[in-house]
Amino acid sequence: MAAEQPNQSEYNRSRVMRFLYNNGVSSRAQIAKALGLTPAAITKITAKLIDEGLIGETGEIEGARNRRSIGLLLNPERFHVIGVKFARSLIQVGLFDLAGDARQIWVDMTADHPSIADMIASLKALIGRIMARFNTVVAIGMAVPGPYLRDCGHTAVVSSMRQWRDVNFPAEFADAFAVPVFIEQDARAGALAQQLFGADDAQDDLAYYLIGEGVGLGVVERGHTIDGARGTATEIGHVSIDVNGRRCDCGNYGCLERYCSAVAIHEALDATLDEDGGIVAGSDRMTHIEACEALFTLASNGDARALELVRRAGTYVGYGLVTIINAFNPRRIIIGDIVSHAGAPLLEAAMHVVDDRVLPELAETTAVTLSELPTDAAVTGAAAVAITAFLEQPSRFADLARRRRGD
Amino acid sequence: MAAEQPNQSEYNRSRVMRFLYNNGVSSRAQIAKALGLTPAAITKITAKLIDEGLIGETGEIEGARNRRSIGLLLNPERFHVIGVKFARSLIQVGLFDLAGDARQIWVDMTADHPSIADMIASLKALIGRIMARFNTVVAIGMAVPGPYLRDCGHTAVVSSMRQWRDVNFPAEFADAFAVPVFIEQDARAGALAQQLFGADDAQDDLAYYLIGEGVGLGVVERGHTIDGARGTATEIGHVSIDVNGRRCDCGNYGCLERYCSAVAIHEALDATLDEDGGIVAGSDRMTHIEACEALFTLASNGDARALELVRRAGTYVGYGLVTIINAFNPRRIIIGDIVSHAGAPLLEAAMHVVDDRVLPELAETTAVTLSELPTDAAVTGAAAVAITAFLEQPSRFADLARRRRGD
Repeated sequence: MAAEQPNQSEYNRSRVMRFLYNNGVSSRAQIAKALGLTPAAITKITAKLIDEGLIGETGEIEGARNRRSIGLLLNPERFHVIGVKFARSLIQVGLFDLAGDARQIWVDMTADHPSIADMIASLKALIGRIMARFNTVVAIGMAVPGPYLRDCGHTAVVSSMRQWRDVNFPAEFADAFAVPVFIEQDARAGALAQQLFGADDAQDDLAYYLIGEGVGLGVVERGHTIDGARGTATEIGHVSIDVNGRRCDCGNYGCLERYCSAVAIHEALDATLDEDGGIVAGSDRMTHIEACEALFTLASNGDARALELVRRAGTYVGYGLVTIINAFNPRRIIIGDIVSHAGAPLLEAAMHVVDDRVLPELAETTAVTLSELPTDAAVTGAAAVAITAFLEQPSRFADLARRRRGD
Repeated sequence: MAAEQPNQSEYNRSRVMRFLYNNGVSSRAQIAKALGLTPAAITKITAKLIDEGLIGETGEIEGARNRRSIGLLLNPERFHVIGVKFARSLIQVGLFDLAGDARQIWVDMTADHPSIADMIASLKALIGRIMARFNTVVAIGMAVPGPYLRDCGHTAVVSSMRQWRDVNFPAEFADAFAVPVFIEQDARAGALAQQLFGADDAQDDLAYYLIGEGVGLGVVERGHTIDGARGTATEIGHVSIDVNGRRCDCGNYGCLERYCSAVAIHEALDATLDEDGGIVAGSDRMTHIEACEALFTLASNGDARALELVRRAGTYVGYGLVTIINAFNPRRIIIGDIVSHAGAPLLEAAMHVVDDRVLPELAETTAVTLSELPTDAAVTGAAAVAITAFLEQPSRFADLARRRRGD
């Protein structure tokens, strides 16, 4: 995702943009000091950014030694990006401002389309309508299930999205719109969203543990995602927790995904239908999301059988946490997507495993929380991918925005 | 390990040093072009490096468009580093030139010392003698078994080195000698050695899979090691391959290390002693290294029971490979240390597992080989850690060398 830096000027503009993005209203002197830029350089850079409409001046603010100076501000609502998340049963599309706040979310169900081609046509039409309505959109980010082979542009494992296996994402979308499209594995996009928009201060060592229809992981180490040679690193869903376990579509045995994904929980739920009506009546006619939400509601209302099933899933979520800690040693792990909606009982069961199986030195210093982003982290993450690209080449995108507005 | 860059000049000198280190004899014009430096800058930088004795001029070489120009050369034999590898039963100490070639290796057996304090005193005395003899030594690298908690300076897991748990490595060694000491987890040091000295061209995405008395992993991604927040990432030896498996000293169950380390193989070997004399007679009175080497010799001579035990270990090595590929997706995995000496039968059994369990797209594009470094990769890796520091701050180390020589 790290785009080539076109030149040193754009690189310095990007540094100033990112400083304002992370620190809010700041004076030229504060920015220059933080980035080691001369007064002449900061004057030139900010003049260009103001001219391009990327930043604006506020009134006077309190500077160093009580001196008053003009504040600079990056207005996150002046530009927008579209984030798209592909999952097995649905596509989510969101319009976001640069702060990662969703202005609107659209959902398109796979079941409503006779074919993938039809679904893609429908998605393109939707994005076209959004872009026609908002000429402030400057980039599109897409989050796709892993393992996503970045170099050849398609997903390699089919278990979570069998029907999408023949779609080449860059070929299908890269030139489909008037703005650039950036594609990332879904959990990695989620990790970028947590890094960019998460509740805590900027975090440079975190992991986003996506437990939805598939199970994935994105890891940010020293500020950068771990990608691997072909883009398929951190595929925790296909790391075996039992080499003698259940066969997975990927070829491996005992893949974590086979035990705690929404699909696996739905299967376990359906298996209870034979026992006097099952935990959730009619679960076999529900989507995975519906079945899981019904189960979690029952569990939070204290239904003993539902609670037990949630805790069992939480135990497997915990085995995954143990592996994540030993393999990646992040400072924070944020659990998100469908299964995280089970809340406290799931997290408690998972942390019981962590406390039992992880070295105390590491268990004590690894924070594990449920995602608190108001929107699904992978959709927000798709937006984060586009916003990161925007911040890396601000003048390129400002120029694009100008042309889109017809200035 | 990335030391703070003291200033821009040192940074540019470091870039030139690394270019010459990786590319051999080059002209000023070639270096300037590759690094984007002006003729004035390259003249100034190389003058300083020549003055400090870090590089020298060769005769004329063929340049661009057949023009002749003076060649520049980094002489790897002018400076030396000491590499130290700590393992359960022994400490290895090597004197290396900057090309990673070992001039001499010393081995000190744990069993020869009444206490850790005595062993440390003996090690310090040995290093002191080497440094007195070679005033060209400018840095020391140490490779210690993981999980090594970088921030507090000691190893966290005790299974492979119980008696060392109370040693604080930086406190013990950082100021013990006239030159700086750099400490790294052993498998990560091995990965750096493969990157710096490996047979192939420079590799930016590789993993070193250490299978010795412990099992460890070092991963280089885009040229940098994956470290984690506290330095304990890539601890493959404590990733579970069976959540219902054998308990490990680290608290986890089914840790890979419990199935294919030299210790685990030795245990399996000793267990055969009850069966008509065992595979290796008297294995229970041997060190882990001796027992494994005896087993591997028998296997390579075609002993059926020995071969079967080696293949069983290889199957577990393969389960580890599957996890490494799915978790880190390196371009190359190099297997090293004691267990890699089993050679072809072990590798074949491991690759059988990989072919069966890894996605074909990834299995086909991940090279797996046995280490070909003439010296143990972790000892060489300890040297690599020191050499990397040297190349990052060449003038600092040149100055140190000058003072050591008494110039």
